[in-house]
Amino acid sequence: MNASVIARLAHLTFSLFIATISYQAVAEEPLPSWNNTAAKKTILDYVEKVTTPGTDSFVPAEERIVTTDNDGTLWAEQPVYFQLLFALDRIKTLAADHPQWQDTEPYKSVLAGDLKQLAAGGMEGVAKIIAETHTGMSQEEFAAIVSEWLATAKHPATGKAYTAMVYQPMLELMDYFRANDFKVFIVSGGGIDFLRVFAEELYGVPPEQVVGSTLEAKFEMQNGVPTVIKQPEISLVDDKAGKPVGISRHIGRRPLVAMGNSDGDLQMLQYTTIARNKEDTLPRLGIIIHHTDAKREYAYDRNSHIGQLDKALDEAPQRGWLVIDMKDDWQQIYP
Amino acid sequence: MNASVIARLAHLTFSLFIATISYQAVAEEPLPSWNNTAAKKTILDYVEKVTTPGTDSFVPAEERIVTTDNDGTLWAEQPVYFQLLFALDRIKTLAADHPQWQDTEPYKSVLAGDLKQLAAGGMEGVAKIIAETHTGMSQEEFAAIVSEWLATAKHPATGKAYTAMVYQPMLELMDYFRANDFKVFIVSGGGIDFLRVFAEELYGVPPEQVVGSTLEAKFEMQNGVPTVIKQPEISLVDDKAGKPVGISRHIGRRPLVAMGNSDGDLQMLQYTTIARNKEDTLPRLGIIIHHTDAKREYAYDRNSHIGQLDKALDEAPQRGWLVIDMKDDWQQIYP
Repeated sequence: MNASVIARLAHLTFSLFIATISYQAVAEEPLPSWNNTAAKKTILDYVEKVTTPGTDSFVPAEERIVTTDNDGTLWAEQPVYFQLLFALDRIKTLAADHPQWQDTEPYKSVLAGDLKQLAAGGMEGVAKIIAETHTGMSQEEFAAIVSEWLATAKHPATGKAYTAMVYQPMLELMDYFRANDFKVFIVSGGGIDFLRVFAEELYGVPPEQVVGSTLEAKFEMQNGVPTVIKQPEISLVDDKAGKPVGISRHIGRRPLVAMGNSDGDLQMLQYTTIARNKEDTLPRLGIIIHHTDAKREYAYDRNSHIGQLDKALDEAPQRGWLVIDMKDDWQQIYP
Repeated sequence: MNASVIARLAHLTFSLFIATISYQAVAEEPLPSWNNTAAKKTILDYVEKVTTPGTDSFVPAEERIVTTDNDGTLWAEQPVYFQLLFALDRIKTLAADHPQWQDTEPYKSVLAGDLKQLAAGGMEGVAKIIAETHTGMSQEEFAAIVSEWLATAKHPATGKAYTAMVYQPMLELMDYFRANDFKVFIVSGGGIDFLRVFAEELYGVPPEQVVGSTLEAKFEMQNGVPTVIKQPEISLVDDKAGKPVGISRHIGRRPLVAMGNSDGDLQMLQYTTIARNKEDTLPRLGIIIHHTDAKREYAYDRNSHIGQLDKALDEAPQRGWLVIDMKDDWQQIYP
């Protein structure tokens, strides 16, 4: 077989493969957990628009970047961020080796389950808890601790495993984007190393596509073993104005689609969708998950202490952001 | 057509596609610019070893991470790093708007082409030059400036465009890794935003797979346009002990293969290849490019002021790192 015959054969079989797969994709209805509302249609139309070759709105695959928030966008975030619940549980586990914690704040409040008192101590107390539970160890050691916690801990209200409190419609949406050659990145205010423990298995997002709040780290040889140790200093707070910075640092190009649920995502939505100049005409999509379902999940927005959605909700109509009403647009919440 | 028929048809055509492509891969000899020395065989054997399913040494595709240095590993780095030459050229361009620079160090030395005097001023002078040429603008503005420079500037010794001074054997090696489902990341002491300007076109490495020295950045609205502005503070020096930190921050998992050419890559090579414990038995590969070819490129190692290769060269035999002799192992240097 000469090279040109091989190339033609490869092309033919590849075309047949693509045609078959495409037929299969059409045969299965996308986003089955979404109701057939305007929101679903807006998403399907958008994806068709940017993936149809030969049109003005076509976007090459390498530019199809989706950035999505995690807490309140991919999984629940009430009564408080799950990562904070992890840290509090971890303090309880470590307390056996730290008898002095019984009389020392902020540990005392945590051990007494008094979160109001912890909150009253302000950011300093929370920072101590985070430093104690998240630093002084390697990424791998931290991952093992989080893994064990995720495998056993239950949500205080639902009794479900935390990993069971992901939103089925969002799992389907990420799959749908990927099936259309989008690359999905998580861009979260949560800790980057915390997210990386479950993002690949739960969301299909590999560690290198996770952006999150980041601690400094330090390389050292420990008994001849090269180790990167997490330090108690902050490298990036990947929230609010920090999200476009995290995107710029980790991804290095502007997203085509951004998804969030709170004012913590406002600047990411702006950075993604607001045109830079008159030539900047590619259609971009901002999506806000609005928690409207007190019965199946939670209902909160402008006055919530977690996941406050106020400014971004006001700005949504003028920016053309798609606001998803969880109650009306989602047929199912959890898998 | 029902789902199972579709699935079978997809599987059949996919198998045919893969078989055809595999035949084609075999038909074309990999790494054509490499001589048939032991080095080439070591690389081919290694890739076969970790990609053969059903063996103890098989590594799933998502763990096939390659990290590679840039300066002196993918392109030349003499007489000094090309990024520094960019900064010096840029100072000359900007000088028209800064008449006071004619009498002010470090600008005065740069404008006079007196690099010895610049070097005598130490890191403070160089830091000023970098701040002046790399900060106070957006990633996009910076990229446009670098692009224009790359399109016109010529190397002082060879007269070639800088982008023509990439190593053809390394382009082939990265292609070969990718053809075997490895994911290639650049991990460079050079600036992340500088590298991202040409890494995708020149090396096939997209911006999100570039790790480099990083400046802080700040989000702001400029006349209603969301902008991330590069700041004159350092977030990460991605060199020496900073390389494993950059890998940990951006990739979040340990590489399977690391490639470098200097002591700046020593810790990355250690981090990649030294076993963590007795269960850590996957074969990992460290590669050092040794500049031995004064005729076709440059010959330097232990005493070079740029790209010094001393400790890593000493450590190579005991660690089992593959040392590439550019003179003997490479049939061709530049494309």
